[in-house]
Amino acid sequence: MANEKKLVEKITARDVDFAQWYTDIVKEAKLCDYSSVKGCLNYLPNGYAIWENIRNDLDKRFKLTGVQNVYLPVLIPETLLQKEKDHIKGFAPEVAWVTKGGLEDLEEKCCIRPTSETLFCDYWQKYVKSYRDLPLVWNQWNSVLRWEKTTRPFLRSREFLWQEGHTLHATEEEARKRCEDMFKVYYDFVTEDLAIPLICGRKTESEKFAGAEDTYTIEAMMYDGKALQAGTSHYFGHSFADAFGIKYLDKENNLHSAYETSWGMSTRIIGAIIMVHGDDRGLVLPPRIAPTQVVVIPIAEHKDGVLDKANELFKSLQDNNIRVKIDDSEKTPGYKFSEQEMLGIPIRIEIGPKDIEEEQCIIVRRDTLEKITVKLNDLNEKIPKILEDIQKNMYEKAKKFLDNHIYEANTMEEFKDMSQKTGFVKAAWCGDASCEENIKEQTNGFGSRCILEEESVENKTCACCGKKAKNIVMWGKSY
Amino acid sequence: MANEKKLVEKITARDVDFAQWYTDIVKEAKLCDYSSVKGCLNYLPNGYAIWENIRNDLDKRFKLTGVQNVYLPVLIPETLLQKEKDHIKGFAPEVAWVTKGGLEDLEEKCCIRPTSETLFCDYWQKYVKSYRDLPLVWNQWNSVLRWEKTTRPFLRSREFLWQEGHTLHATEEEARKRCEDMFKVYYDFVTEDLAIPLICGRKTESEKFAGAEDTYTIEAMMYDGKALQAGTSHYFGHSFADAFGIKYLDKENNLHSAYETSWGMSTRIIGAIIMVHGDDRGLVLPPRIAPTQVVVIPIAEHKDGVLDKANELFKSLQDNNIRVKIDDSEKTPGYKFSEQEMLGIPIRIEIGPKDIEEEQCIIVRRDTLEKITVKLNDLNEKIPKILEDIQKNMYEKAKKFLDNHIYEANTMEEFKDMSQKTGFVKAAWCGDASCEENIKEQTNGFGSRCILEEESVENKTCACCGKKAKNIVMWGKSY
Repeated sequence: MANEKKLVEKITARDVDFAQWYTDIVKEAKLCDYSSVKGCLNYLPNGYAIWENIRNDLDKRFKLTGVQNVYLPVLIPETLLQKEKDHIKGFAPEVAWVTKGGLEDLEEKCCIRPTSETLFCDYWQKYVKSYRDLPLVWNQWNSVLRWEKTTRPFLRSREFLWQEGHTLHATEEEARKRCEDMFKVYYDFVTEDLAIPLICGRKTESEKFAGAEDTYTIEAMMYDGKALQAGTSHYFGHSFADAFGIKYLDKENNLHSAYETSWGMSTRIIGAIIMVHGDDRGLVLPPRIAPTQVVVIPIAEHKDGVLDKANELFKSLQDNNIRVKIDDSEKTPGYKFSEQEMLGIPIRIEIGPKDIEEEQCIIVRRDTLEKITVKLNDLNEKIPKILEDIQKNMYEKAKKFLDNHIYEANTMEEFKDMSQKTGFVKAAWCGDASCEENIKEQTNGFGSRCILEEESVENKTCACCGKKAKNIVMWGKSY
Repeated sequence: MANEKKLVEKITARDVDFAQWYTDIVKEAKLCDYSSVKGCLNYLPNGYAIWENIRNDLDKRFKLTGVQNVYLPVLIPETLLQKEKDHIKGFAPEVAWVTKGGLEDLEEKCCIRPTSETLFCDYWQKYVKSYRDLPLVWNQWNSVLRWEKTTRPFLRSREFLWQEGHTLHATEEEARKRCEDMFKVYYDFVTEDLAIPLICGRKTESEKFAGAEDTYTIEAMMYDGKALQAGTSHYFGHSFADAFGIKYLDKENNLHSAYETSWGMSTRIIGAIIMVHGDDRGLVLPPRIAPTQVVVIPIAEHKDGVLDKANELFKSLQDNNIRVKIDDSEKTPGYKFSEQEMLGIPIRIEIGPKDIEEEQCIIVRRDTLEKITVKLNDLNEKIPKILEDIQKNMYEKAKKFLDNHIYEANTMEEFKDMSQKTGFVKAAWCGDASCEENIKEQTNGFGSRCILEEESVENKTCACCGKKAKNIVMWGKSY
């Protein structure tokens, strides 16, 4: 059957053409697909199930810190979007405008939200009266739309799914702590649940969010050495509160301006999972967020007792809270193996007549492709352990890759040399935007990813201009 | 303190002005609020948490029947919306149009989805080739927008949250079964988890969904006797598949047109929860979907050991998987009681120095306001039982109300009399749309809610024209 051709033959080798490899995987694993709406994606069951697991895990972490979920409108009236000056400058060129409702032209046009700071602040201005109403720690899981010119599945599309948290506080200290806490939640989630190692720090002036005083970012390195911004947390100070007139009365009845933060993570992170962990056979999913953790594949299933035994294993694992499937379809075992590998299911269990005789089965790990023979009696005990081991191994492998692909440059010559390699470059910087721009031009696109705030700049000079350094910065090409 | 005035004093009595009572509860329980975007709501933490629980419970039920979640775009190009003729006729007058993207005018305008049949069908036309690709049983949790003129919180707003399921099948039988199965899922969910009794059946020609061959509905009766459509399941036959050219090859390589269904439930259902169960003290939430099931309120909390004991109870219930909170704020106990009642929290536990001495606490049920003294040692065993009892009692009370407010009419005179009462009217109907219209006019708004398919029409005549009856229909005023 034409359909039974091994799936792996349909994907380009990762080292031959990384961009094509990525596109092939997204297509063959049926994660998402372009819709008839230019630049907008259809998130298909296999891709959306990953997002659901990300959402559920991250949402639990949010709620442990006191986050409350809400939902605010999809539309923003033009006058609201314009209230914060830096914000409108950043977003006006990339929003979609609704100008007609029903059969009538609107008196005031509305944009589809590109982000919702303005809606939250507009409501808070009416809602908040006293210190008793603070803090507000709200979040929404929604979609936003930005009118991008070029698009790529998960990495850049006009509409994407995300969560946007917005918080309001009585003091700068509390707001800064919340901004930092959420940054930490992202860091823990991505390293622990997605097995992706991170570089993190503060964005430079030119890279921070439109309207923010400070933006903190977590950055991941893809297999091609490029950086992907995986999550951001913004401290706004008074900027939005002042633009919207959000004030509260303290215990002594004095009026104060409030402090705001926001923080977000999007479906972009699925692109990172693909490009950090995937290989020439397809996706490799971290067990903690894999929609299916184990697939049971009966071998010679027409033979007596095979299907029964396979179903028994399936049910026993299901009762043990493993996300397990059984593939008893008419496809050949070879095709089923290939499919498990393409979909990145962490473990497959092969069980045939001979195995049943020996009271055992074969476990194949997706991360190492290692085959392990396991006694059927031990299966329920072994599977959770192997899943944990896969999770750990995936992180360690990715961490080694990251560490091995960070270079240090002291001068522009060194920087230019290193920019030829796959990876990031660490270099000191004077803090001047023109040096940042200069570096980007001379290195064919190495932008500042983040300021490494804990690294000392003592005796360091800017790699670009040679003046006294203000920060150590991680530089990289980006998605 | 002005703030400490009993919350209940802020709401209008239910029997004095039902509409105002509803609005007051939505406001005082902080469920949702109007935003600056005309006709669009802000779903606040207390309201959104109810929707989250509804979503989680219903989604589990969906998945047990094989539903897969997806996400399709927020925008629909005009040509797509126009493909199915009845559909565009139904929705064109109430959509919002995007005409500009970024700084440019769009070549083709797009509407914000009012519902997504057209997007699913457009994708399936490309995606489906063979019988192997079927069935497709997809669903999305999203928001839709309809440019309504008049709006009310939860009941009618321009943007609302819902789920929309869309399925595609090889045979009529399978599609009809799916339509029926999902209808059954809604019925079970609403009666079991929301404690709302239902009338259900098929919509008449004039009331069915734009483009559907059949629409099945579950209808609930509110305290004022009006009907609220709580969920619908549509069987489309070939209408959309033909309009979009969705065809598949069967095993013998013959080309066939596919069959489609869709089904949805929205945040409107929160309105039903309020109007079926609420009373003059506020919300009454069914324990299964109450965001907080139990609140522990320490009495004389400044006294030695009270707070410790209250926290001990709180933690022990939390470990027992009860959704519990403790209110150790500075508010007076009276205010806290009033707040628990307003928010509809099923159980409050009062514990003070005297109770501690006696090793007991006081449980107050929100549904009956009954006070029960419980030994502390028995608490973990009793609470789940009382919650189950509240759930059951709420359903039974509402079922009695429903049963007591259904009247039967054989003639137009009887119908007109009964239409003065609070409730529904059951009457035979000839099947003619003009009689349906006529009844509505003569009864000041009693429309057909649904055809009761299991009731016999033998020897029955149409209440309006006296001709031979074709159906028994439930009639009512609607939200």
